[in-house]
Amino acid sequence: MADVVPFRVDHIAILVRSIDESLAYYRDRLGLAVIGDEVVPAAAVRLVYLDAGGAMIQLVQPIGPGAMASQLATHGEGLHHLCYAVPDLEAAAGLIAPGAEIRPIQGGRGQRTAFLPMPINAVITELTESEP
Amino acid sequence: MADVVPFRVDHIAILVRSIDESLAYYRDRLGLAVIGDEVVPAAAVRLVYLDAGGAMIQLVQPIGPGAMASQLATHGEGLHHLCYAVPDLEAAAGLIAPGAEIRPIQGGRGQRTAFLPMPINAVITELTESEP
Repeated sequence: MADVVPFRVDHIAILVRSIDESLAYYRDRLGLAVIGDEVVPAAAVRLVYLDAGGAMIQLVQPIGPGAMASQLATHGEGLHHLCYAVPDLEAAAGLIAPGAEIRPIQGGRGQRTAFLPMPINAVITELTESEP
Repeated sequence: MADVVPFRVDHIAILVRSIDESLAYYRDRLGLAVIGDEVVPAAAVRLVYLDAGGAMIQLVQPIGPGAMASQLATHGEGLHHLCYAVPDLEAAAGLIAPGAEIRPIQGGRGQRTAFLPMPINAVITELTESEP
């Protein structure tokens, strides 16, 4: 099945209080290039993407009330979720969680994405549709 | 400085109770190839590396008393740490945390690795020395 729907890590999301402060670390010290910086109003977050070699780091900062602000208030900063790039969202979700219903939305970078309805090994898992 | 010491994501570590059970998901459903399976006695863990495209997923299972077993008992499964591959451990650590003392050990895959003495945005951060 891997021949049909290859999974690869797209990004690792890190929840932070202040992207501007975090950039002093990721951009200025590690030297990672910023390749995206956007606000997703529907999710009340600012997202910054950094090129970390074969995968991206996504910094997530809540900019208003919502799930991410609640998460930050309750659990603090830290690793948040793992996102795989797949060629076909529904096909990939069907392999991971047969029968599970996903709700694709327009996520960061204008891509069609969906979170799996359940975490795997307590890891919140996102899929994003992109060309191989 | 990024020209001198490029950082790239080497692996994302996921702490699990049972690697064998987790492989039913990562290997069998996502189709990720197992590229390493070893025991690190000094850390009392079994480590399995999966090829997830441009970065690896490292499954970590405690196999005896130690830091990882305590972590699992206290916080459960989930995303654990982020590891960057760097050409020079000391040079990289110096950029991230000037003056901080690191203690290189022989980590997974026989590589020279070190955890930074402090997390960044609550993310436990490891460096591993490898050729670019």
